[in-house]
Amino acid sequence: MSNIIRRGLMLVLSSPSGAGKTTLSRGLLADDDGVDMSVSLTTRPPRPGEVEGQDYYFVDRQRFGEMRNRSELLEHAKVFDNYYGTPRAPVEAALSAGRDVLFDIDWQGTQQLQEAAADDLVRVFILPPTAAELERRLKTRAQDSADVVAGRMAKASDEISHYAEYEYIVVNHDAAESLVQIKAILTAERLKRARQTGLSDFVHGLREAL
Amino acid sequence: MSNIIRRGLMLVLSSPSGAGKTTLSRGLLADDDGVDMSVSLTTRPPRPGEVEGQDYYFVDRQRFGEMRNRSELLEHAKVFDNYYGTPRAPVEAALSAGRDVLFDIDWQGTQQLQEAAADDLVRVFILPPTAAELERRLKTRAQDSADVVAGRMAKASDEISHYAEYEYIVVNHDAAESLVQIKAILTAERLKRARQTGLSDFVHGLREAL
Repeated sequence: MSNIIRRGLMLVLSSPSGAGKTTLSRGLLADDDGVDMSVSLTTRPPRPGEVEGQDYYFVDRQRFGEMRNRSELLEHAKVFDNYYGTPRAPVEAALSAGRDVLFDIDWQGTQQLQEAAADDLVRVFILPPTAAELERRLKTRAQDSADVVAGRMAKASDEISHYAEYEYIVVNHDAAESLVQIKAILTAERLKRARQTGLSDFVHGLREAL
Repeated sequence: MSNIIRRGLMLVLSSPSGAGKTTLSRGLLADDDGVDMSVSLTTRPPRPGEVEGQDYYFVDRQRFGEMRNRSELLEHAKVFDNYYGTPRAPVEAALSAGRDVLFDIDWQGTQQLQEAAADDLVRVFILPPTAAELERRLKTRAQDSADVVAGRMAKASDEISHYAEYEYIVVNHDAAESLVQIKAILTAERLKRARQTGLSDFVHGLREAL
């Protein structure tokens, strides 16, 4: 990669539960030290061992509401009785410093990010290779009743129906191959002219010297 | 890569002479058997050893003019007394078969391709790392007079001025690293939802089975 100053990007990975997204996110963070995981804001109390600013930013409901009303959140949602959101300021700080930020969010969060920051967003949807493989993964993972698994399959089908809202589609036949593909997407997107904010100066210097 | 049917893409590599484009094109063709080099049509006579349909398609001026007038050329140009162009039919055949086509053309040809086939086009501009390095490469390559080298430098500066018409910019510090970057662009572009024309059927089948 050249030394040209660039603006970081927001990489969204979405998928139905069981398609392997968490494994791929971890692999990407382990292999690429230019990528930070997005840290969410939540009103739920910290669990034992959770670290402020690392696992979550913990705030009360009043503070959450203030931030939401001031458009200080890039996206937000209510899950059961708790609120979750993505604070804008740390993401903006990372992007300005040329670092990329990884988001593990669903289609609803992605739609909000698209409204808030379309130019910085790179949307990747991960599909399971077959329905049978997805079912196998959901069963292996959760030692749950048939009903619970069936509910997850229905939810997965709903999530999958939103694949067309993403620019890139990775079919996860093999985690190692999919990780290579996601890294290629990241490499390519970093090479986009519009993200290489120092290019204009670089080319100016080049032409001056010719 | 998945087995989902996809439409091929047109990968354009442009750069000033001396930036290393030919080496990168050869490397890509050697490493990726899904990529074909675009074969141009020309009115100039074959040179010894040149093979019809491999080096060029050789035609007379009347035939060239007919094809141009019927919009059977994706782009065309006159160089000295000869005409050159890219026939549309073999490119379309390759794209329909899911093969990618590589174009080594300048900014003027790229502009014409953009008008003719914007959705299929992926435009990459290769920049030299420094003016001094470009000069060194032009001198090493051509055992020419200082005047000739100076002329090429001026032409390079003009070509570089069009970098902003390309989506991706690769600064060629090192040929091996640049080849990796170009391959990443190709991998990423193949994963674009819009190119995976079989996705809709694939997702339909997946959801039916869930």
